[in-house]
Amino acid sequence: MIDINKYWKNSDRKKKIIHNITNYVTSNDVANMILAYGASPIMADEPLEVEEVTKISNGLHINTGTIQKRTVDSMLISGKCANQLNKTVLLDPVGVGISNFRKYVVEKLLNEVQFDAIRGNASEIKVLFQGFGNPQGVDVSFEDRVTEENMFTTLYALKELALKFNTVVAMTGEIDLITDGYESFGVYNGRAEMELVTGTGCQLSGLATTLISENPEAKLYATVTSLIGMGVAGEMAFDMLEKDDGSGSYRSKIIDVIYRLDGKTLMDKANYKLL
Amino acid sequence: MIDINKYWKNSDRKKKIIHNITNYVTSNDVANMILAYGASPIMADEPLEVEEVTKISNGLHINTGTIQKRTVDSMLISGKCANQLNKTVLLDPVGVGISNFRKYVVEKLLNEVQFDAIRGNASEIKVLFQGFGNPQGVDVSFEDRVTEENMFTTLYALKELALKFNTVVAMTGEIDLITDGYESFGVYNGRAEMELVTGTGCQLSGLATTLISENPEAKLYATVTSLIGMGVAGEMAFDMLEKDDGSGSYRSKIIDVIYRLDGKTLMDKANYKLL
Amino acid sequence: MIDINKYWKNSDRKKKIIHNITNYVTSNDVANMILAYGASPIMADEPLEVEEVTKISNGLHINTGTIQKRTVDSMLISGKCANQLNKTVLLDPVGVGISNFRKYVVEKLLNEVQFDAIRGNASEIKVLFQGFGNPQGVDVSFEDRVTEENMFTTLYALKELALKFNTVVAMTGEIDLITDGYESFGVYNGRAEMELVTGTGCQLSGLATTLISENPEAKLYATVTSLIGMGVAGEMAFDMLEKDDGSGSYRSKIIDVIYRLDGKTLMDKANYKLL
Repeated sequence: MIDINKYWKNSDRKKKIIHNITNYVTSNDVANMILAYGASPIMADEPLEVEEVTKISNGLHINTGTIQKRTVDSMLISGKCANQLNKTVLLDPVGVGISNFRKYVVEKLLNEVQFDAIRGNASEIKVLFQGFGNPQGVDVSFEDRVTEENMFTTLYALKELALKFNTVVAMTGEIDLITDGYESFGVYNGRAEMELVTGTGCQLSGLATTLISENPEAKLYATVTSLIGMGVAGEMAFDMLEKDDGSGSYRSKIIDVIYRLDGKTLMDKANYKLL
Repeated sequence: MIDINKYWKNSDRKKKIIHNITNYVTSNDVANMILAYGASPIMADEPLEVEEVTKISNGLHINTGTIQKRTVDSMLISGKCANQLNKTVLLDPVGVGISNFRKYVVEKLLNEVQFDAIRGNASEIKVLFQGFGNPQGVDVSFEDRVTEENMFTTLYALKELALKFNTVVAMTGEIDLITDGYESFGVYNGRAEMELVTGTGCQLSGLATTLISENPEAKLYATVTSLIGMGVAGEMAFDMLEKDDGSGSYRSKIIDVIYRLDGKTLMDKANYKLL
Repeated sequence: MIDINKYWKNSDRKKKIIHNITNYVTSNDVANMILAYGASPIMADEPLEVEEVTKISNGLHINTGTIQKRTVDSMLISGKCANQLNKTVLLDPVGVGISNFRKYVVEKLLNEVQFDAIRGNASEIKVLFQGFGNPQGVDVSFEDRVTEENMFTTLYALKELALKFNTVVAMTGEIDLITDGYESFGVYNGRAEMELVTGTGCQLSGLATTLISENPEAKLYATVTSLIGMGVAGEMAFDMLEKDDGSGSYRSKIIDVIYRLDGKTLMDKANYKLL
């Protein structure tokens, strides 16, 4: 279905530079993930310099964890700059439901920046949908845990959101749902234990920004490929754990797998379907 | 003595949310420690949102490493909010002795927020005692290194501090001393090599906040249990090190042990006494 | 040539305190590197306290990654304080080429603070040279990749820079070049894969600050020794990698090696020459 081998570490690719305006908790992991995949991360969040940084980058990853008044300005400046120069922009609305400030910021970002993709978990995407994504006030049921049974009602909501903001929406969980409003996929790769390592979601967002930057003509497929890649890394790293290993070692091994994983292996292990 | 099995990863527990206003050097480790134990960390330090974050959390961990003018406001807002709503609040006065600014901030925090526990090393607790804790100006001897010989004079000072601020005081070192002013314990678990990994103290403070949140009716015992847990993790992780391993691997393995450690094993390995 | 055993973990040494004003992406790694070597890191970047922190430290490491307006003030305050008190100061001009703001800040730092050493990669040092280091406007060829062939033309530029700013200049890459303007060395230790771990450059700068603080009478030799140490750690850690390991495990093992590495082993593995 998706030519994963084409999008994952494409051998023709040039090394992409990814500008991350992100939180300080997981920025080290995000940088190591982007490096392990084979691209170059830059972290810069000072309003006085972010426009120049976005200009020399291929993609921009905006992440609202540990957001500050100061960094919001940077997100808006860089987001608009990326749009003008036709560079990839991805939004990870980390914790958008935890405060009115985050809701306000995410709404402002959605109104002023055109995103290529939005990546979040169910509770984050739910806030987006209920807060800003539900134009006709339709009462769409939106479950926090996606199952085979409720998958299609949740997907209906995601499609609305994707169409309203003209973007790819990727909602991660036990089953990941990804849609651009027209075509949709469900990804079954991954392990529940990944949530016990901080930053796996942020790392995925950095990875997705990288793949979309490498494949701008195929945003949806690039996003799906990045989710499959992260999921497979979680599975393979888990299998590599030894008797006494736990979440501390798991963290390092997920990055190890991304470093080694090639497109053919990924295609073999991919577990997804067109919805 | 202490029913460790009751306080450590109590099977009846609901997953607690811990709000951390902490430094950027070790925040990733603190998040991974809280996740490994089985609770949910949130890091947020913007004054515009911290009150809401504290409201949805069960415990608040305030840590003065890499303190800024901006985050001091957040500490005061969240601390007062946690007090009003009767949520756990722990103070880790990281580096309180290194500047007048930190002393001023810690004094302000101690005056305006009621803490359930204060966790620090000997030089930090000494500053607290000599600066703000010594009401009658009594000349209590306070050694930087707690030994069997000087233990009781140091404990005398800690009791004064605990009574003055109506809190549990936990001073970590070769022998950890923990008191609420009435009942006191000495914990012998742990290894000196833990100090060669940055953030083991911050991680312990995150862990202690979690255990107190889970066991608010037994603050002293929950604190002692968290110190035993971190100490045993340091011992077990050290024993797991292989020939070429050093402090880099030790860091991951301490988190691995916390992830796996159950109450019964902890009780077997606990090395402490009532003082 | 260089008595490496004398400068690396000198057995007479007292534990040095290193004040780091650095970025939030790699600060954890820098702290763990300094601890693994056997010194004490402090991270503090609030203008209200940095002067006091520098005063109690032996060395100051200024790093311009994730620079902010707020931390620039701290860099200037601490840099001048270190100069007045005759303490070691090292500059790592991370990403100086990515924005006018960073260029402005680095120029200001170079004008107002006397550095003992500057450590950067080729593109960073090139900006320094072309922007502020080239007094007669001489058109010195400056290649991004140092080879046996172009080594001496690049070294010519580095010497100019070292003399102009009266400092040791260390440019890292496939071949590291280090000079104080009078005496120069090339270091061949290290592995290209180190660049796939974020922060190895920042860690090296922390390490170099530590070694210069321990050996202030031999700044050039201490700097060369720290570069050899980091390079050898990269080689030994790479040899320790197992079948499935990648850049995630490599990160921990580099720190493991520094923790264990003694001066004699380092001298055996050192691969450098006087130029």
